[in-house]
Amino acid sequence: MTTLEIVGGRVLRPDMTVERADVLADQGTGEILAVGDVPAGDTSLDVTDGLVIPGLVNAHTHVAMALLRGYADDKPLHAWLREDIWPIEDVLEPEDVRAGAELGLVEMIRSGTTGFCDMYFDVGAIVDAVDRAGLRARVGYGSVTVGKDEKAAREELEAGLRVAQEYDGAADGRVSTAFMPHSLTTVDGRELDAFVPRVREAGVPIHIHANETTGEVKPIVDEHDERPLAYAVEHGLLEERDFIAHGTHCDEREIDILAERGAGVVHCPASNMKLASGIAPVQAMVDAGVTVGIGTDGAASNNDLSMFDELRDAAMVGKLAAGDASAVDAPTAFGMATAGSAAVAGFDSGRIAEGKNADLAVVDLDTPHLTPHHDLVSHLVYAVTAADVRHTVCDGRVLMRDREVLTLDADAVRETAERRARAAVERAES
Amino acid sequence: MTTLEIVGGRVLRPDMTVERADVLADQGTGEILAVGDVPAGDTSLDVTDGLVIPGLVNAHTHVAMALLRGYADDKPLHAWLREDIWPIEDVLEPEDVRAGAELGLVEMIRSGTTGFCDMYFDVGAIVDAVDRAGLRARVGYGSVTVGKDEKAAREELEAGLRVAQEYDGAADGRVSTAFMPHSLTTVDGRELDAFVPRVREAGVPIHIHANETTGEVKPIVDEHDERPLAYAVEHGLLEERDFIAHGTHCDEREIDILAERGAGVVHCPASNMKLASGIAPVQAMVDAGVTVGIGTDGAASNNDLSMFDELRDAAMVGKLAAGDASAVDAPTAFGMATAGSAAVAGFDSGRIAEGKNADLAVVDLDTPHLTPHHDLVSHLVYAVTAADVRHTVCDGRVLMRDREVLTLDADAVRETAERRARAAVERAES
Ligand SMILES: [Zn+2]
Ligand SMILES: [Zn+2]
Repeated sequence: MTTLEIVGGRVLRPDMTVERADVLADQGTGEILAVGDVPAGDTSLDVTDGLVIPGLVNAHTHVAMALLRGYADDKPLHAWLREDIWPIEDVLEPEDVRAGAELGLVEMIRSGTTGFCDMYFDVGAIVDAVDRAGLRARVGYGSVTVGKDEKAAREELEAGLRVAQEYDGAADGRVSTAFMPHSLTTVDGRELDAFVPRVREAGVPIHIHANETTGEVKPIVDEHDERPLAYAVEHGLLEERDFIAHGTHCDEREIDILAERGAGVVHCPASNMKLASGIAPVQAMVDAGVTVGIGTDGAASNNDLSMFDELRDAAMVGKLAAGDASAVDAPTAFGMATAGSAAVAGFDSGRIAEGKNADLAVVDLDTPHLTPHHDLVSHLVYAVTAADVRHTVCDGRVLMRDREVLTLDADAVRETAERRARAAVERAES
Repeated sequence: MTTLEIVGGRVLRPDMTVERADVLADQGTGEILAVGDVPAGDTSLDVTDGLVIPGLVNAHTHVAMALLRGYADDKPLHAWLREDIWPIEDVLEPEDVRAGAELGLVEMIRSGTTGFCDMYFDVGAIVDAVDRAGLRARVGYGSVTVGKDEKAAREELEAGLRVAQEYDGAADGRVSTAFMPHSLTTVDGRELDAFVPRVREAGVPIHIHANETTGEVKPIVDEHDERPLAYAVEHGLLEERDFIAHGTHCDEREIDILAERGAGVVHCPASNMKLASGIAPVQAMVDAGVTVGIGTDGAASNNDLSMFDELRDAAMVGKLAAGDASAVDAPTAFGMATAGSAAVAGFDSGRIAEGKNADLAVVDLDTPHLTPHHDLVSHLVYAVTAADVRHTVCDGRVLMRDREVLTLDADAVRETAERRARAAVERAES
């Protein structure tokens, strides 16, 4: 057994208090063995003066879209998808997806994110990148049936299940999967009815975009005379390990459905603002007992993958949504991005405690914009940025030390991404 | 004449295009002499691979409140002021204000801000800090008359005018001033009537908080049967060089008043979200021809002074306010934080062009979260953070080179601020 000792820092405990403590991790199981006064480890990471926090979990993204960061901005969701995003995604090759994923993974490691959930295509390339980067991920293929004939529609869902089965447990168990029908409006309900029992038999959860915009809610209400989440339940969705992305427009009854059934929600505040989709009623969801995590969504609608930006956005816009400055307070926001997101994703991370995954980040607090130290949890939510992360550890392995990513060559990743992005734009626009 | 040559970078021009160009600045007048192929300077700053942008202008803040960053969060404006902020401000000494100001100035220099407007007390300590830091500022004393007897109320306004006259032109002309009655609800209208003609005679503009919350709008409407900005005009405010902070709750007629009279608005999106005050109708203001700048407000309601956060917030929340993802697009948001804020503040900065103040920042774009380079203006608004700023120049003088602040000792400033913040909390809570 090899152990890693994280020495000299302060630790943010699950109750949001900060104490002087060391952390010992088992690099075999990837678990935290002890917190406090710990025995010496086989290897050590000196984090003197740093704050050890649970690694952030980005519970909904499309990591390879880092390749499209800044490609098209300032347009409403449906026009942006139809006119810009789908046409360029159409010409992406698996090597482009790999390049975009590696770019996004480097950015995540640099910003203290240790785990994420991802919906995309060419999932094999993404899993391979995750394997080498050393992060934890739940991945899936985004199945779309709308506009397809019956055979093609079924093949989309088959592909989703095939991917979920193929990659579950990959990367030494750091990769898990979900069946990921793209959204309630882009996947046909009858096709789902026929398919969901097979997903349940396979034992993987289901992740889907839902209630993101009023433009998505209305056609379901018009056609089926029920709210989207009631419609989702009728089609076999929203079981306990399932989770939806967005939930921007959920009414009280839908919040109750999520709470009663134990299905999770991934709040994506930046994407919801940037696409003018609306503001999710996050404090109401938390109050109702819904498990809420936070996600960046893809970099094309954000435009970065820093969960520190997202945390701040969640706290900020959560107050606007509730009309109450005490809503989504700092501990609530930080909890959503760590323990909340981990619960949604089905990861055993998000807390620095014995037996939990050794997924953590170390933040440098000795900097002007984090002075004075009145309240460190407030700083984590309102003032820390990605660049304040000094070390990142996942599964007991050091992925970044002193701001240097160890598992991927950041410069090479950046150059490849730049080159492939330019070539993809040329193909899309020719 | 000494000149500074800024060599090897790309330059963001006033039309939001990017081109390869050098910049030559006159360190005597502090002006830009040439952009493009320029003659060699007496001294030079190598910015190879960097993007030269106009220095950001933080058009409304209370810089010394950096000392209170994280002191009290997650409370509505009025409770937060009464229960937390005012009691601790009551025990602040001039040396605390100096320490807070220096902390905030270091943070501004590090995040590419070259100018700001500030309302506070102990203004002499702030001016002294600005002088040494090398930034450009418009400062004033925030006069409050509410709850004071007639004599004390007049003395508050006298102090505001005295400060405006004393410091105008300080720091080699980098400091200008304004008369700053705190807000329409904390300063008595009749007292203003008697006083404003003297302010006009002195030739300084007037800056005031207005229409920040519905709780501020309602008492004016109830008592005077008119909207706050009509009330402001009746009391002699909103002349051409005047500017209000917030304007969160302005109706169409009030937007027209601002546009017709040429008074500016400083949008403070983070503060308005964090205090659940609301969202200013920024796109409607821009469409009506109002001069709109951006400000962070104080660090206690933000909690940082990075204008890059504020830019992103303005673009994000501007889309929500308008219900339109094309509102407050990237060029509009960046323009508000530079040329817009400069116009509001009355600075001749905010554009990289001959004859303008040589106030600029250099951003390092070769980093994973700014890859690929599809659109650099999009990056400036949606993805650049404070830590991406490599050099900062104000009035032709290099204030930060390779991320090292040259004019203030950042470590000493941090230590003094931490010590003084702790002592102030002890006094406030004893
Ligand atoms: Zn998504
Ligand atoms: Zn203010």
